[in-house]
Amino acid sequence: MSENGPTFATDPRHAQVARELYAAARGLPLISPHGHVDPRVLADDEPFPDPARLLIVPDHYVTRMLLSQGIPPDRLGVPRRDGGPVETDGRAIWRLLAGNWHLFRGTPSRLWLERTFQTVFGVETPLSRDTADEVYDAIAARLAEPGFRPRALFERFGIEVLATTESPTDDLAQHAKLAADGWGGPGGRVISTFRPDNVVDLDRADWHDNIGVLGDLAGEDTATYAGYLTALRRRREAFIAAGATSSDHGHPTARTAKLSGEEAAAIYERGLRGEATAADAETFRAHMLLEFARMSIDDGLVMQLHPGAVRDHNGKLHAAHGQDVGGDIPQATDYVHALRPLLDAYGMDARLRVVVYTLDEHTFSRELAPLAGGYPALYLGAPWWFLDTPDAMRRFREAVTDAAGFYNTAGFVDDTRAFCSIPVRHDISRRVDAAYLASLVVQDRLPMDEAAQTLADLAYHLPKRIFRLDKAVT
Amino acid sequence: MSENGPTFATDPRHAQVARELYAAARGLPLISPHGHVDPRVLADDEPFPDPARLLIVPDHYVTRMLLSQGIPPDRLGVPRRDGGPVETDGRAIWRLLAGNWHLFRGTPSRLWLERTFQTVFGVETPLSRDTADEVYDAIAARLAEPGFRPRALFERFGIEVLATTESPTDDLAQHAKLAADGWGGPGGRVISTFRPDNVVDLDRADWHDNIGVLGDLAGEDTATYAGYLTALRRRREAFIAAGATSSDHGHPTARTAKLSGEEAAAIYERGLRGEATAADAETFRAHMLLEFARMSIDDGLVMQLHPGAVRDHNGKLHAAHGQDVGGDIPQATDYVHALRPLLDAYGMDARLRVVVYTLDEHTFSRELAPLAGGYPALYLGAPWWFLDTPDAMRRFREAVTDAAGFYNTAGFVDDTRAFCSIPVRHDISRRVDAAYLASLVVQDRLPMDEAAQTLADLAYHLPKRIFRLDKAVT
Amino acid sequence: MSENGPTFATDPRHAQVARELYAAARGLPLISPHGHVDPRVLADDEPFPDPARLLIVPDHYVTRMLLSQGIPPDRLGVPRRDGGPVETDGRAIWRLLAGNWHLFRGTPSRLWLERTFQTVFGVETPLSRDTADEVYDAIAARLAEPGFRPRALFERFGIEVLATTESPTDDLAQHAKLAADGWGGPGGRVISTFRPDNVVDLDRADWHDNIGVLGDLAGEDTATYAGYLTALRRRREAFIAAGATSSDHGHPTARTAKLSGEEAAAIYERGLRGEATAADAETFRAHMLLEFARMSIDDGLVMQLHPGAVRDHNGKLHAAHGQDVGGDIPQATDYVHALRPLLDAYGMDARLRVVVYTLDEHTFSRELAPLAGGYPALYLGAPWWFLDTPDAMRRFREAVTDAAGFYNTAGFVDDTRAFCSIPVRHDISRRVDAAYLASLVVQDRLPMDEAAQTLADLAYHLPKRIFRLDKAVT
Repeated sequence: MSENGPTFATDPRHAQVARELYAAARGLPLISPHGHVDPRVLADDEPFPDPARLLIVPDHYVTRMLLSQGIPPDRLGVPRRDGGPVETDGRAIWRLLAGNWHLFRGTPSRLWLERTFQTVFGVETPLSRDTADEVYDAIAARLAEPGFRPRALFERFGIEVLATTESPTDDLAQHAKLAADGWGGPGGRVISTFRPDNVVDLDRADWHDNIGVLGDLAGEDTATYAGYLTALRRRREAFIAAGATSSDHGHPTARTAKLSGEEAAAIYERGLRGEATAADAETFRAHMLLEFARMSIDDGLVMQLHPGAVRDHNGKLHAAHGQDVGGDIPQATDYVHALRPLLDAYGMDARLRVVVYTLDEHTFSRELAPLAGGYPALYLGAPWWFLDTPDAMRRFREAVTDAAGFYNTAGFVDDTRAFCSIPVRHDISRRVDAAYLASLVVQDRLPMDEAAQTLADLAYHLPKRIFRLDKAVT
Repeated sequence: MSENGPTFATDPRHAQVARELYAAARGLPLISPHGHVDPRVLADDEPFPDPARLLIVPDHYVTRMLLSQGIPPDRLGVPRRDGGPVETDGRAIWRLLAGNWHLFRGTPSRLWLERTFQTVFGVETPLSRDTADEVYDAIAARLAEPGFRPRALFERFGIEVLATTESPTDDLAQHAKLAADGWGGPGGRVISTFRPDNVVDLDRADWHDNIGVLGDLAGEDTATYAGYLTALRRRREAFIAAGATSSDHGHPTARTAKLSGEEAAAIYERGLRGEATAADAETFRAHMLLEFARMSIDDGLVMQLHPGAVRDHNGKLHAAHGQDVGGDIPQATDYVHALRPLLDAYGMDARLRVVVYTLDEHTFSRELAPLAGGYPALYLGAPWWFLDTPDAMRRFREAVTDAAGFYNTAGFVDDTRAFCSIPVRHDISRRVDAAYLASLVVQDRLPMDEAAQTLADLAYHLPKRIFRLDKAVT
Repeated sequence: MSENGPTFATDPRHAQVARELYAAARGLPLISPHGHVDPRVLADDEPFPDPARLLIVPDHYVTRMLLSQGIPPDRLGVPRRDGGPVETDGRAIWRLLAGNWHLFRGTPSRLWLERTFQTVFGVETPLSRDTADEVYDAIAARLAEPGFRPRALFERFGIEVLATTESPTDDLAQHAKLAADGWGGPGGRVISTFRPDNVVDLDRADWHDNIGVLGDLAGEDTATYAGYLTALRRRREAFIAAGATSSDHGHPTARTAKLSGEEAAAIYERGLRGEATAADAETFRAHMLLEFARMSIDDGLVMQLHPGAVRDHNGKLHAAHGQDVGGDIPQATDYVHALRPLLDAYGMDARLRVVVYTLDEHTFSRELAPLAGGYPALYLGAPWWFLDTPDAMRRFREAVTDAAGFYNTAGFVDDTRAFCSIPVRHDISRRVDAAYLASLVVQDRLPMDEAAQTLADLAYHLPKRIFRLDKAVT
């Protein structure tokens, strides 16, 4: 890795222009409107554990790659649902990674980890089987320093605002603690995001329990559909009080549907009686997106939709280790028909903002860019999850700019649990966008000054404005 | 923009070879076998209106992008169906565009407009909020000159032949006027294209009226299916007399079907009685493609198919402003199964020429190139509509050349209502093809002389031959 | 073509690094674990016929392109099913190719043929209408030399192992002859591959006959489902004795299914009675993939799956000339749902190796790379058939490396009937991978030494290990 970091350009002239553009955006604060950092990390501000437990164990990109070559998650310290024994020695886990480092050649995981070692921990030694202990010890030594506690890093990283993600069944106690410390609440540095999936999916085993908690926290009776809707509105108010400016919805498909209140109530009641079918659950999810859009028009929360994952495709992995450990797989996703009921109802209403993500990159040019370039309410979310890589981010710009331009895209989201990788991920995103803009400059398709302004907008101003982080939602 | 225009190459050596190739094709006449210029423009040869009404109001690429950021079509002068008031001040519309010019960074609309300002109107001042009036006045001044009347521009643009598009319910009076002036008719400069969608779609509200007009113009009784077929054949003869060498079919899907005459007649009769279902309409469209293919084998019209648009996806936009104002969205499209009945019947018949377009670029390498590279009757149409952009045109060549080569592709079509953008669009297409061919040259995959010959074929000789413009159809 | 061959890079620095990487892999032996060379060619070691019958007549990439421009297969010497007359003069066929050589500009066929002329036959004269006879005569002269017999070429090509493909209804006599000559058998230079499609597809007209032959060769009674399974196991043993290390399965879809023995037997019996439906046939194919996976866990054969072709799409071509003459077309293919039953059952079992190919490149980033990067049993096969081209191979690496890295990919397969093109195809694959790796090097994303090691792994070590060619299966 050269001193200045990768330019994501092969031609020297292109690389030089990319470097100049990037230099102008490098110092802008980080806006992180969508992520999965545990708010307790910042509320408690305790030192991080060892390098393996910080950087490997919770990173399912890393553990799934090792699994694909026959290294089971147990040996990597990934907790088992049955509480059975897993590796607990951070150094042993680290050596497993180092001994299989070749598996990550060319992958974003390698890039993120190497850049984290270098730019966050100042460790320049390339990782290998031979240097495993040296790198581990160097990072561990840093983690013991006060300057590597979460809040110190937060400030050093230049994060202006970080959104975490919670369910309406969460009591938001961590965010209350942050607010009490002057770190949270409306307009604060750490804010929440309203993610109601676990009270919307009728076919979850814990749905019945979840709506009970929802009712308790909201002080509403969720035994009726009307009470359920009221409870959701109450919780949205609580989230807004915890600084939230957006909601987040992760459905299997992008389907939206407009049901009458009676139809919706009937499905809800079948859910209560344990009689809802899979089709009921899908219809109810589709309907609730319209309900949430209506609530958003009232309370101002930006809606984020990210459909398209087959959750827990790897059944044995899920049985042993639970969710979010690398067993989800993307599937082909339709947007043009699925979003039509939502867009028919509210797509022309500029009070609504819907940010749509995808795991199916082939919808970018065919469906999502034409939709975002034609409806005032719709914005394109950043390439996400399997697509948040240098090459996929470049393909995203190449696919969407024709029909959507830059200003219907909502900026980068890091979407990460890995706090220490946040500056690295934003940095790579800025470099990739710089490379794309530089390609337009060297092709005489955009003047340098407009390219620089666009990069600053993509990196900072656009996400701040679109996610309503320029002012607290009230 | 450099003096010589963009090369669509980043590497200097690649750009240099692209420039050399382009130079050889630059002077070839323009062949425009598929477009939507109003023939009245050339029949009447009146001066164009103001710059906004010429370049913005009718360009749905431009108005939809502005709409996507909350600027309603009313403020851009797009007529309302209810006749309600819209902006009529061309300068005010122009200022709205200029004030939002950043939305178009990186888009083909910006490239087309800038190149039109420069190469058609000689206006080099970059458009911005500050220069809006200066650019407007400069273009307006030119539009008042005799050299900027339509026929003068037609000759200056180097257009050899321009096809407009009419329904069989059109009386072709404009084309008769053009023929009387020595501009139209078989082998003429301005010819028609036979587009029968509005008499084929049983589910159109105006279908019944349309087949009445069809019968009147053809002197046939369309109250029977047999009469309907005869009327279509009569109108094709009239179109051929107006210079047409091709038909054009814009269906929601690519489905083709072979019905018996009795089956087709039964559906037609249900249509007459107002009893046709949506499935009937789809089947009838599919069947009629085989009927039109049979007619083509008899009368020589080249068939153009362009399926895959969800028309009027934006319901509120359609309700307010009607069709063709930017509310259509592409959808995933199957060709491999849908075209099979047509190809089974006539795909090996070299008397037939079918040019297929798509809005779903993911079918290029998977379906369309293998089909065009395996059936004598099938040709690949140019990347079209949302795909007629520099980057999508490059992706088209990268996707189809492996299985279809260059000689199963039918050359560029501008598909435009915007007369003044015609030379710019052809110029960009030639530059992009030059860049693609240059990439083969610098990779030692094609010698320079063959690349130059190929570019001339793509730009001129192939579309002229494939669309049968090298001789009048008789 | 420059002296050193194409680098598949446009930027000079990128090309230079690609050249350096390629130089290190150039001398590695060829591993060909999946192909369709007739074993008789090597068993008999007779001289090849004339250039046209060697290089054109059996190459459906070439004959379909000529057909697409109206040159019927009869004129190219492709045999007719009815035994009717076809062109027999090799020189006449060759002249047809040369006279239409422009059709192949930019295609892989041109690259393969030119490189074959140059590097196998030492003929540097560019092919054209004018040089047709000169090139023909030069190649014909070489074919008459002893050094151009199949076994001599095999050794000159540096092939370490070549797998042919046979049905369980094949008696493997050619492989027995090769083994007797010291060329075949376990660990030998020429080995077989077990491809049971013709005894699995209930809807084939010859299925009933085929299972009869299967039973006879295995000494089992295939009149029962149990006997059928035993017969398959017996034939797998015979194939392993003929050196096979893998099986190969070419289904219309990727569907897998887990039936009970009773359910499977019931379908089989409907097949025996001629009562199986198309749905039965699809379910039986899906079920048998799980059965074959279970057998693979027992006997060690690597499973290869390559779904997604619509066979004999061109009905008239099939009626006249039969199968494998260029009439197959790819279709959209689902893997994420289709493979789930197989992966649920055996995806975490590292004893199993499943190599999956596709004709639908849009599944690479969306489905196949995430699957291969998450299941120990799954490997990504090389880009194949319509996708075994320089540009598609580059797109493959760009699409899959993010989620699967390099080490879940199984290396290049030439998949060819054209023996003389084998070294050329492998050479191009190595050059394309070198160019991809070089792009990572010049972007500072991978050090040179790791890139060189990766290229050697992709070219040689990975396919050797994954296809279990490093030791005979016993």
